[in-house]
Amino acid sequence: MSETTLTNRRIVLAAYPEGNAKAQDFRMHSDAAPTPADGEFLVGMRWISVDPMLRIRIDAAPMGGTLAPLPLGTTIPGAAVGEVVVSHHPDFTVGSLVEGRFGWQDYAVSDGAGVHHVDPSLGSPEVALGPLGLPGFSAYVGLHAAGGVRPGQTVLVSGAAGAVGSMVGPLARAAGARVIGVANGEVKCRYLIDELGYHAAIDRSRGKLAADLAVAAPDGVDLYFDNVGGDMLIEVMRQLKRGGQVLICGLMAQYNGVDTTGPDRYPALLELIMNRTATVRAFANVHYEHLRPDFIRDVAPLVATGALPHRMHVRDGLEAAPDALASLFGDGVTGKLVVRV
Amino acid sequence: MSETTLTNRRIVLAAYPEGNAKAQDFRMHSDAAPTPADGEFLVGMRWISVDPMLRIRIDAAPMGGTLAPLPLGTTIPGAAVGEVVVSHHPDFTVGSLVEGRFGWQDYAVSDGAGVHHVDPSLGSPEVALGPLGLPGFSAYVGLHAAGGVRPGQTVLVSGAAGAVGSMVGPLARAAGARVIGVANGEVKCRYLIDELGYHAAIDRSRGKLAADLAVAAPDGVDLYFDNVGGDMLIEVMRQLKRGGQVLICGLMAQYNGVDTTGPDRYPALLELIMNRTATVRAFANVHYEHLRPDFIRDVAPLVATGALPHRMHVRDGLEAAPDALASLFGDGVTGKLVVRV
Repeated sequence: MSETTLTNRRIVLAAYPEGNAKAQDFRMHSDAAPTPADGEFLVGMRWISVDPMLRIRIDAAPMGGTLAPLPLGTTIPGAAVGEVVVSHHPDFTVGSLVEGRFGWQDYAVSDGAGVHHVDPSLGSPEVALGPLGLPGFSAYVGLHAAGGVRPGQTVLVSGAAGAVGSMVGPLARAAGARVIGVANGEVKCRYLIDELGYHAAIDRSRGKLAADLAVAAPDGVDLYFDNVGGDMLIEVMRQLKRGGQVLICGLMAQYNGVDTTGPDRYPALLELIMNRTATVRAFANVHYEHLRPDFIRDVAPLVATGALPHRMHVRDGLEAAPDALASLFGDGVTGKLVVRV
Repeated sequence: MSETTLTNRRIVLAAYPEGNAKAQDFRMHSDAAPTPADGEFLVGMRWISVDPMLRIRIDAAPMGGTLAPLPLGTTIPGAAVGEVVVSHHPDFTVGSLVEGRFGWQDYAVSDGAGVHHVDPSLGSPEVALGPLGLPGFSAYVGLHAAGGVRPGQTVLVSGAAGAVGSMVGPLARAAGARVIGVANGEVKCRYLIDELGYHAAIDRSRGKLAADLAVAAPDGVDLYFDNVGGDMLIEVMRQLKRGGQVLICGLMAQYNGVDTTGPDRYPALLELIMNRTATVRAFANVHYEHLRPDFIRDVAPLVATGALPHRMHVRDGLEAAPDALASLFGDGVTGKLVVRV
């Protein structure tokens, strides 16, 4: 295979989105694929991940300006699964499957940092972007390492039908917790109960979260695994048990921008933290890399046997990625969304 | 001593304060002292504590309405040190000194629940309302049990010259941390450095918190021990290290009421928690009662020898208590404020 013949299509950031991302915020760019140096390898992309967090990375002022914006023209830095097609690295042989933050493009060069081998015996390779990838690992380390979930606890999950939430429910149930999921619409709520094994589901579209939560968790919530943020977080905190915990995994409600014209909910949040003797914490997967072998050992068999159900949604063609990202917001997607390159 | 001859003066809540508490929000009431039943004892008050948290308890909607308001006419439920004057309880002999939430009054009946013996050998009895009482215990369990302070950490303390803050500084320094205090005005800042052993002090009245903090803690803050809340909390979070912690001990900035007419700082706080991979938590002393013997063992000798400096401010006469409470807000008081009954 000659490296010089390879053309690399890549999706780059053309403009900082306002609100939900639109087609014109992206541009397809074609140039020669990069050439791996000694100690590097070239990955040919097979699947790319469409993740809500990407919306933050392409914002003009990511996370309220606490992160530097991505320069325009940068390749969208999503996770992906690909095949090693050229290698000058002893640990990554040609033909092996790898997962890493390779970006939305046909080819990427890597030195192996942050790259994981994908074991084809664990199922279809795109699973390494879902239940055995970032979303699954977030659910696993969030619940067990950061959250310290214990049997008998009441765990509430927002975005419960999403890529992370659809893993949190079954894993929390397996840990002996009572698990309540919040999702938009009856179809997703049925999915939570019938397929994911949530003990109860709350349909956010009813607009009665507080009342529905009081019924589903009459003694209050021990652990709120939050993928959404927004008003729901403060509503849930009013029904948090004393000493309860809020684990912020995602803030989807505010990735597309926020309206800060009052009322100011900040003093109320601080008062609730104090009144509930609560802990509100975020966690970062990178702090828990040492748990990856445990994660694969515990979760891979459940995925392989179907004991841990999951849904993958597949769009075809690299060019489908921007629209796929936009589709995550609003009503959202059930399960994990990927693009087959 | 005849019980029937005792008159009990008590300060009751006459009106829910708006903003800082005023004289007309309180009323002095006189009636017969209560009579202890079997298993109870009567305490004659000697010192009462004036604590900022009392402002919350007398609010019309305490903690943003998350607590029930105190009924009008209720005795102000402050902590106090008194002497047992009548006893039908084997563990509390006449003449012994006790500390408990006896309220702003001359006499109170107790069954011993939540009451601690005051050891006169540990110094002047009113110390049981300051360094060896609730403020000291809050500083001790907050830093060690909730906060898990470690040598080499950078600890920032707000309200650093107050009853709790003036204990946190020396205790954090003794634990091997680098300690920075925030207080209002040059006089208090000098007190932090010269008497309490803070490594650095930031004068909030300069209005340059962010810049001053960047100088005092160029590598960021590991642990923010917060007695104040308000804008300062969000400012500090911007300079929190990744994985850093905010410990909410008090929210003095909002005890007198809050202005919620935007901008809404809530989304920014959530984004900062996520961006800093931060933990924001409150703690309750009652969860750590098992550490009280350790606290007395570790802290009492430091107080007795003067190795742990502290200031007590004394006002005279029960009737001085309402004005003393109001004086805690605004510029505040250096050290612990008590009233000698």
